[in-house]
Amino acid sequence: MLDLYFYEAFREEEAAIKRYLPNGISAGFTWKTIQENGDRELPSKLISIRTQSRIPLEWAKDLDGILTRSQGYDHLLQYVKDSGVDVNFKYLEGYCSRAVAEHAVFVMMCLFRKLKAQIKNFDVFHREGLTGMECKGHKALVVGVGRIGREIVDCLLGLKMEVKGVDIDPKDHRVEYVSLEEGVVEADVVFCALPLTKETDKLFNVAAFEKAKKGIVLVNVSRGEISPIGDIKIMLENGVLGGAGLDVYCCEKGLADYLRGHSDTASDEVKLVCELKNRENVVFTPHNAFNTFEAVEEKARQSVEAVVHFIRKGKW
Amino acid sequence: MLDLYFYEAFREEEAAIKRYLPNGISAGFTWKTIQENGDRELPSKLISIRTQSRIPLEWAKDLDGILTRSQGYDHLLQYVKDSGVDVNFKYLEGYCSRAVAEHAVFVMMCLFRKLKAQIKNFDVFHREGLTGMECKGHKALVVGVGRIGREIVDCLLGLKMEVKGVDIDPKDHRVEYVSLEEGVVEADVVFCALPLTKETDKLFNVAAFEKAKKGIVLVNVSRGEISPIGDIKIMLENGVLGGAGLDVYCCEKGLADYLRGHSDTASDEVKLVCELKNRENVVFTPHNAFNTFEAVEEKARQSVEAVVHFIRKGKW
Repeated sequence: MLDLYFYEAFREEEAAIKRYLPNGISAGFTWKTIQENGDRELPSKLISIRTQSRIPLEWAKDLDGILTRSQGYDHLLQYVKDSGVDVNFKYLEGYCSRAVAEHAVFVMMCLFRKLKAQIKNFDVFHREGLTGMECKGHKALVVGVGRIGREIVDCLLGLKMEVKGVDIDPKDHRVEYVSLEEGVVEADVVFCALPLTKETDKLFNVAAFEKAKKGIVLVNVSRGEISPIGDIKIMLENGVLGGAGLDVYCCEKGLADYLRGHSDTASDEVKLVCELKNRENVVFTPHNAFNTFEAVEEKARQSVEAVVHFIRKGKW
Repeated sequence: MLDLYFYEAFREEEAAIKRYLPNGISAGFTWKTIQENGDRELPSKLISIRTQSRIPLEWAKDLDGILTRSQGYDHLLQYVKDSGVDVNFKYLEGYCSRAVAEHAVFVMMCLFRKLKAQIKNFDVFHREGLTGMECKGHKALVVGVGRIGREIVDCLLGLKMEVKGVDIDPKDHRVEYVSLEEGVVEADVVFCALPLTKETDKLFNVAAFEKAKKGIVLVNVSRGEISPIGDIKIMLENGVLGGAGLDVYCCEKGLADYLRGHSDTASDEVKLVCELKNRENVVFTPHNAFNTFEAVEEKARQSVEAVVHFIRKGKW
């Protein structure tokens, strides 16, 4: 049996992990989820996933440990609860905060400057309807000023925007803190960088934007459940939102299964995402904001450090 | 006869100019060039164009003045030379430096982060091949550190990049100045913000990038003649360039005529631009970097200020 098995490790990540892995540790790799790989048997007593594999409940009793190569770990809390086995798991911290933040910021700029329409209109070389908005002097609201939120603030201040923040624990002294409801009144763009909790679930709904400045741009790079796609559709259609940049989706497992052709059925939410994706004023990316050479390298380094420690010491 | 006539004024610009124009001045507008409008007769003794209209030589003797709503004015120098009439002309200054700079910077980020591939891969929800580069800590070379170049420097430093500059008159003390040949050796991205002169024409050719870091990204927002499209094609194909973001083209009048369907014939250069435009690692926009609400407003303000002065005083 292998020492460990990595699921959901795309090509660049696999290469980086292999560079760090010491000799004498045997590891298997696939870019697929456990389901896509069709695994019924546990491939090793230590496995590593990201967020889309559903670990079979019957594996729990034989698993020594699980490493989720993500910052979020609510899926493993759920697994422990569902399986009734207190499986040792570990998650990664802060490996991709800058990557995610820079992604959020350039997606904002694409929406401010109507990039999709610019590229499309290149084909007729016209500028009608292409007038956009500059960053400098405009107002941003960063909701969730944690690791990623702070990096977003850093980029926005660097581009000379005015930045306010929303957070239950205000620690970044560069920004003035307000409530979400107050903040959207003046903001030209709002970023969601919140963790998913009972309190943040569906927080970015129609009601939260009732007093928002018309045409506000929304960028969500943390968890799709926080900005329900049905609410986004309504707000894109009634002009409350001038644009939406999503890297995360409320129905991400179902969406991935459907788009990858593993499932013929799409939930209503999946259908809505697919309906909206080609609009000129949206930029939808495949949960890829974390994906830079720098972050992949750091993630591989942290992952290998963790699994080597676990294999040698029997604990995280 | 009208007091003045605006060519090449797209919808948003026309609306902004009308807000500033005082009562008592009669003005005509079209988004078309003189050629597209089919004008044989001078519509007024004062006309305003951008860069794509070719003013008939026989109009010169009847023209009191010309305002080009652009920062470049080499086309009017040429007109004076060709017509043999010393027509009074004026150009605008600095109205869109920040708009152009921010455009250049977000196009760089789109290329660093493979945005076109990210959007395309959304349809299969895969991340293979989507790993990109962060800005922070990476190296930029700004060639031409004038009004626009300085704003580019400002954005890049704000994103925590290392920035060097190339300029015959080094004035921005935030950057270290080097030669183009030295600069490309280490740079991850090079920006062209040069004016078009005899010295800069075709400057960004294959030879200039001979010692460039493999996969360097090129962004040109000033004049297309400086980066010949044939050289860009070669460098995209041999991997010298990792990406190219163009808002300006060597053959812009011909390109616009062809893409707008006014001409059936395309020069070799126009054909090359059309061949390259759909590549995943290029972002081509229709000379639109200047086009923000802020810049359109400021341009309208400056244009009206200039023409009102001219109409009242008979000189610029």
